[in-house]
Amino acid sequence: MAKAPKTAITPTREEDYAEWYQQVVKAAELAENSAVRGCMVIRPWGYALWENIRDGLDKMFKATGHVNAYFPLFIPLSFLEKEAEHVEGFAKECAVVTHHRLEAGPNGGLVPAGELEEPLVVRPTSETIIGATYAKWVQSYRDLPILINQWANVVRWEMRTRLFLRTTEFLWQEGHTVHETSAEAWEETRKMLEVYKTFAEEYMAMPVLTGEKTAGERFPGAVSTLCIEAMMQDRKALQAGTSHFLGQNFARSSNILYQSREGKEEYAWTTSWGVSTRLIGGMLMTHADDDGMVMPPRLAPSHVVLLPIIRQDSERESIEKYCNEIADKLRQQVYHGRPVEVVVDTRDLNAGEKGWQWVKKGIPVRLEVGPRDMESGGVFVARRDRGAKEKYGQNKDEFISGIAALLDEIQHGLLEKALNFRKENTREINDYEKFQKFFTPKDKEKPEIHGGFASSHWCDGAACEEKVKNDLTVTIRCVPFDREAGGVGRCVVCGQPSKGRVTFAKSY
Amino acid sequence: MAKAPKTAITPTREEDYAEWYQQVVKAAELAENSAVRGCMVIRPWGYALWENIRDGLDKMFKATGHVNAYFPLFIPLSFLEKEAEHVEGFAKECAVVTHHRLEAGPNGGLVPAGELEEPLVVRPTSETIIGATYAKWVQSYRDLPILINQWANVVRWEMRTRLFLRTTEFLWQEGHTVHETSAEAWEETRKMLEVYKTFAEEYMAMPVLTGEKTAGERFPGAVSTLCIEAMMQDRKALQAGTSHFLGQNFARSSNILYQSREGKEEYAWTTSWGVSTRLIGGMLMTHADDDGMVMPPRLAPSHVVLLPIIRQDSERESIEKYCNEIADKLRQQVYHGRPVEVVVDTRDLNAGEKGWQWVKKGIPVRLEVGPRDMESGGVFVARRDRGAKEKYGQNKDEFISGIAALLDEIQHGLLEKALNFRKENTREINDYEKFQKFFTPKDKEKPEIHGGFASSHWCDGAACEEKVKNDLTVTIRCVPFDREAGGVGRCVVCGQPSKGRVTFAKSY
Repeated sequence: MAKAPKTAITPTREEDYAEWYQQVVKAAELAENSAVRGCMVIRPWGYALWENIRDGLDKMFKATGHVNAYFPLFIPLSFLEKEAEHVEGFAKECAVVTHHRLEAGPNGGLVPAGELEEPLVVRPTSETIIGATYAKWVQSYRDLPILINQWANVVRWEMRTRLFLRTTEFLWQEGHTVHETSAEAWEETRKMLEVYKTFAEEYMAMPVLTGEKTAGERFPGAVSTLCIEAMMQDRKALQAGTSHFLGQNFARSSNILYQSREGKEEYAWTTSWGVSTRLIGGMLMTHADDDGMVMPPRLAPSHVVLLPIIRQDSERESIEKYCNEIADKLRQQVYHGRPVEVVVDTRDLNAGEKGWQWVKKGIPVRLEVGPRDMESGGVFVARRDRGAKEKYGQNKDEFISGIAALLDEIQHGLLEKALNFRKENTREINDYEKFQKFFTPKDKEKPEIHGGFASSHWCDGAACEEKVKNDLTVTIRCVPFDREAGGVGRCVVCGQPSKGRVTFAKSY
Repeated sequence: MAKAPKTAITPTREEDYAEWYQQVVKAAELAENSAVRGCMVIRPWGYALWENIRDGLDKMFKATGHVNAYFPLFIPLSFLEKEAEHVEGFAKECAVVTHHRLEAGPNGGLVPAGELEEPLVVRPTSETIIGATYAKWVQSYRDLPILINQWANVVRWEMRTRLFLRTTEFLWQEGHTVHETSAEAWEETRKMLEVYKTFAEEYMAMPVLTGEKTAGERFPGAVSTLCIEAMMQDRKALQAGTSHFLGQNFARSSNILYQSREGKEEYAWTTSWGVSTRLIGGMLMTHADDDGMVMPPRLAPSHVVLLPIIRQDSERESIEKYCNEIADKLRQQVYHGRPVEVVVDTRDLNAGEKGWQWVKKGIPVRLEVGPRDMESGGVFVARRDRGAKEKYGQNKDEFISGIAALLDEIQHGLLEKALNFRKENTREINDYEKFQKFFTPKDKEKPEIHGGFASSHWCDGAACEEKVKNDLTVTIRCVPFDREAGGVGRCVVCGQPSKGRVTFAKSY
């Protein structure tokens, strides 16, 4: 009987998807749980990935006219209360600062002291605290638009956490803009969703659907929430970014008034939009395999690792020299606007073990270099997007001059593969029986394995939305912008008329 | 009678230094107070400056072998308590999270609910929370050194705050390293102090003294604290950065144990080092003048502003086109490793008002471009390091090709000027009467105006240190590393033998 192939990650996706995810995060040294409930430690390899995400997005934000600023971590409770829906949405998950000192307690240890007159909430999002400042900055239409982004940490007290996907503290960016007209605020909301889509697809190699959330899934206080949604390898949807049209709701609660061109006092129109360290979880579940992480080259902390294969100590110096020469030449190459990043791994470990560590970390290309390669002026190349044992020899100069093309081939291949996966697991479904079947796991032991995305008609009724949620834990992920182009039909749940199909899925 | 020259900032440094500082921060649009006590809003121009500080330092950290990571915002109270001196040092300024939700209170509003079993302190610094993770990572000498830095926000509850100099929340970086031996940890502590000194002088154009803090001024829990100290324009000292040799204190309290090369279990040796948004306050008080901020070119958010001078609407298009052409060519020039950053200010405001706004923001170079300049192929140049009205004409191509040299001349000029200022205001003082006189304001209305830095002998006694603090609010800023090279003497306070001079000053 053929043995099952040995994988670097145990269990495999097939065996236990949720546990596989945790094991990949661990094996790739991306992050780990800390001593503080729900707060993670982002390890250097994971943080370098986040820095690349940040820098890539930041460039796109600046190219669309935005600047960065920084606002307080704390929000006075009364500010949060100003927008009724908003505070209701976040009240259950607020970390609250109530004291500003520690002093000796009755039992010897320290206890909180110096009670604050007004409790401070650690920001779960910053609309209300930023709004208070904007109200001071905005007097006239001449002060508009305000186009500001903030890179920050936020806290949402979560009961069940999962590294990157749902943590009590996470890192994110939040854009907060103010406009003269509804049309301009809408344009901004759509533009930033497009930026997210472009970033997800071109940098992360993660295809996304775009559309509008239903009323039930909106950001608390928003008039409309737009989103990007990606399909993970367990066929569930991940909401990867949102862009909110806030109308005049927050301008009203924060009193952002401006004098219009006609000389009238008007409430301004605002938007907000954000993505977070959750993107790392999404990237992992898009590309990683049973051998660990797979980094898309445009975001990979390093592109190439050189692994000297040294069998005798006498070879060490010359092989390491040869590797360093190759590394220096590679670093002079540019891929996608940044110099190729190279590691020469000279640690005193056996080559096989080292190689597997880099496979698990997902570095796009590994080069093995032994005495024979050196003699022949060659390198032995392994691509992370191919099987771990598939390797080929190449002349070193050809490898060096072709590195940008190779990385781009890997980048595009990852996107292609993810697009195909989504296509294979998306169905147009027109009756509720098939719909139920699609979302019901065939194997009760593996409840995560189910159909994928269902593109189905919906009557726009909250009751039908509620029913699929209760029956199947399925939600409407997004209402496509071009929904009506696909033609009318009948609601997959109740049979009433529908303006067009929407996307249903299970989700994170 | 000659009129006093009109300045863009009121009051001037001479008239009211503390108020001048606030007015420069405001006029330069660097930051402002928020609705949350002691927390500031860092405005886009100030934040862009911080981004440049961050990027400059980050490159130096990476060049010295460090990587970035991210650790939790919250510290369980029990962790902080593990190091006795440490918690004592920070207990009075801790923001404490005690609840994790909000619920309807008896009077209608929301109140904190969901009390935590153990209160969480918002990190004032991260030795204890990072130590808990390091204890898991470190098993053997093979795991050492750990060389990690974190960019983060921290909170220290301050009663009297001042934008950038002392705020409840501030942004900073904190390096936390672990080593096998005391010697290696000492080497790291010194090396990072050198990095800070280089950065302060070469980027910020802010000269600094380096040395060791006395026992009384040490970081709580450290064995030794090294520092960089700068002289501000009111002749007071600003502690601008610190690097701590922590010995085995935090390794003991966090249980960072490793198996040594000899197979024994040993406590590791740790260091920590940090600089913060305080640097912006230091830069301001080093270079700003009575017309506002002066940005050192290597950190300036933008280097050059072009101000089209338009007298008739018919000229607008051609002048703006001319300006944009110059701007594009300037952007192709590189200064100190980054492309020259240029703003073309086409706002519909009068040219004088626009010009003054940029003076106050401290942009290094302003170019005025009117119809005659355009005809002659010239520009009208104003340098921020010269008087606001001092301007000269130059051929545009010569200006463009000379921009990097011009910016470097400004950069070096600022450092030179600050070095001279410090030299003029530093005295060797050998008797206590003169010492008292040096530190006693001549004008009681302006208590800040006093001597500057006194280089005086000290017996190493805490009593003498205490006395000058009580008599004159003067402290020992640092004990120079080469203290003994200057020769022995007698303590300026008590007359007992001294190993060498130390630096005394009033401070922020």
